[in-house]
Amino acid sequence: MNYFSSDFRLGILGGGQLGKMLLTETRKFDIQTFVLDPSEEAPSRFGCNNFYKGSLMDFDTVYQFGKMVNLLTIEIENVNLDALDLLEEEGLPIFPSPKTLRLIQNKGKQKDLYVTNNIPTSKHLRFVGLDDLKNSLSKDELDFPFVWKSAQFGYDGNGVKICRSALDLIKLPDVECIAEELIPFKNELAVIVARNFSGEIKTYPVVEMEFHPEANQVEYVICPARINDSITQKAQEVALKVSETFNHVGLLAVEMFQTEDDEILVNEVAPRPHNSGHYSIEASYTSQFENHLRAILDLPLGSTDSKVAGIMVNLVGEEGFEGPVYYENIEQIMAINGVIPHIYGKKETRPFRKMGHVTIVNRDMVVARRIAEEVKNSIRVISIQ
Amino acid sequence: MNYFSSDFRLGILGGGQLGKMLLTETRKFDIQTFVLDPSEEAPSRFGCNNFYKGSLMDFDTVYQFGKMVNLLTIEIENVNLDALDLLEEEGLPIFPSPKTLRLIQNKGKQKDLYVTNNIPTSKHLRFVGLDDLKNSLSKDELDFPFVWKSAQFGYDGNGVKICRSALDLIKLPDVECIAEELIPFKNELAVIVARNFSGEIKTYPVVEMEFHPEANQVEYVICPARINDSITQKAQEVALKVSETFNHVGLLAVEMFQTEDDEILVNEVAPRPHNSGHYSIEASYTSQFENHLRAILDLPLGSTDSKVAGIMVNLVGEEGFEGPVYYENIEQIMAINGVIPHIYGKKETRPFRKMGHVTIVNRDMVVARRIAEEVKNSIRVISIQ
Repeated sequence: MNYFSSDFRLGILGGGQLGKMLLTETRKFDIQTFVLDPSEEAPSRFGCNNFYKGSLMDFDTVYQFGKMVNLLTIEIENVNLDALDLLEEEGLPIFPSPKTLRLIQNKGKQKDLYVTNNIPTSKHLRFVGLDDLKNSLSKDELDFPFVWKSAQFGYDGNGVKICRSALDLIKLPDVECIAEELIPFKNELAVIVARNFSGEIKTYPVVEMEFHPEANQVEYVICPARINDSITQKAQEVALKVSETFNHVGLLAVEMFQTEDDEILVNEVAPRPHNSGHYSIEASYTSQFENHLRAILDLPLGSTDSKVAGIMVNLVGEEGFEGPVYYENIEQIMAINGVIPHIYGKKETRPFRKMGHVTIVNRDMVVARRIAEEVKNSIRVISIQ
Repeated sequence: MNYFSSDFRLGILGGGQLGKMLLTETRKFDIQTFVLDPSEEAPSRFGCNNFYKGSLMDFDTVYQFGKMVNLLTIEIENVNLDALDLLEEEGLPIFPSPKTLRLIQNKGKQKDLYVTNNIPTSKHLRFVGLDDLKNSLSKDELDFPFVWKSAQFGYDGNGVKICRSALDLIKLPDVECIAEELIPFKNELAVIVARNFSGEIKTYPVVEMEFHPEANQVEYVICPARINDSITQKAQEVALKVSETFNHVGLLAVEMFQTEDDEILVNEVAPRPHNSGHYSIEASYTSQFENHLRAILDLPLGSTDSKVAGIMVNLVGEEGFEGPVYYENIEQIMAINGVIPHIYGKKETRPFRKMGHVTIVNRDMVVARRIAEEVKNSIRVISIQ
């Protein structure tokens, strides 16, 4: 197949920052792109050949969009799967496949799959709704504390709540959900697995999410993770086993916990470029976005090795600010060697909205970590009227 | 000044591959861009906010384009300078300035400037036309062999001819020109100097252009150059002196010869991102395109150090092929670790047209050089009907 400067058309469902960074790679290879997103202000509105505004959950919109392209991929999981099923039936290659997406969209099914395939994960119970869960509590099948998760449409920590007592149940929505055992962990790790249609597989190094000691928020994604070789190997093996189970084409980001007693438990997966792989644009021989593209086009995968150490800091909207965005002190952090901001192109900030990220690269991880803290303490995403 | 996700508008004169790669950086920082190019198939037609088709040499077109933006830069030197003069007079910041462009556009003036400022360069004579040159030959002021160069509008080796006898004069156009002493050299080197409006200056490492032993064509741009420390230092010093002389804002690519007796002579300069700096996208902490942008926006310059060794191979149209482009064996080279193709987005190939480039990055220069040769011997830019 000839993709380069040809008539081949790649469709991307979703036009957020992940789509935007993927488009950079399509431009590098001169591949024609079609993007569908509900917002006409979507970060991906530039850099594609054709941008369409429309709902990703609407059957007709997604189906009609699919009919215009030669291959379809996603940058967000919440898309109309019935439309994808029909398109696939009619012969359109779709990666990740609607079957994989259906398993991943539902956290209950995802967890069941891990259990069926002997993939280590925390214990869980599935419930059709809140009453069902309460029933289970009253019958002592379930005990506090546990982690409540909405089965569908969770994103970036939405749809997750730690429940320590009946008080925590009051505000929960009455939706299909799961309850997971609350497991104390030392580290949150992630491995991105790239797999092309022919079955070539490569894994990126294990990365570590470092949390703020008080706020319990991910502050830094650190590559490589500062863990010992045996944990590294175990995490890689588990990630490969998960990849095998999903039999995906494209990227699969596998999020894991390293427990207090050095077990690796799978938390959840995303079948696409992932926040935990943004560091790869600067630090890796091949960025996650380029490898996603190579994988779905069945091109040879690029090296997933790192040139240098990489740390990623998310730029999220500061609490108390809403409106036209202003990046305070961005010039100051740009004066530091190896500091590269990525601004996603969203005009308006609001508290905790992902507005961009900053990558810190350095030959020395200790120096990179120190600079990352300096970056985190300098830049603020605010609004000035 | 607030550039990021703001109403600030950057104008770029020229929409070729240099503009395209510059646009990638503007997207990363979410800066609004306007592009003017004579071709509606220009590689930069995607990735900018607004694309305008129009002549870069037409006063009114360039002037009207300039009135729409807050700052103007170029990706090609051959633009209407009278329009730029007026725009600058009216307060528009333009980098490089029309004054710098005027000096560089004319190779005679450029050479005179080196002489005036004691910058080492080969001896030259200026002529208003071919008769003037022939006169000089007949009066023995000029001797064969010499290098004839058109004073204006040379590009990529066009407008240059080595003259060894009267026979070589026959096909020369009757235009303003210079004759340079033909100097045998060991190496052709280049240094890119970045300078922002506030005067912060950084130089990229010295790179080496390796020539094909028979075809006398640049085959590889190699970073860092395989030269000793004293030559490296001399080349850096000369490049900085040239930069000082032009007092430019943005990038200045300084091409130099290392003579048989290890002198450094300046050949010519380009006040913009340059073919000799393409390796920087993958190999440097900050790509030349990002630093051009940082410089003209008066942001702090990024580190010009390299993460790994980098070699660039130009992808030019194969002789004997003209028409819709096909990149033969591109999949094959993509299977090699650290090999990244850049396809510029030109639909039609023709002999020697620059269609893209391939970067090879590796921790080990010897390995990189071996892979570069493999790449060069594998991929072909052809047309299949």
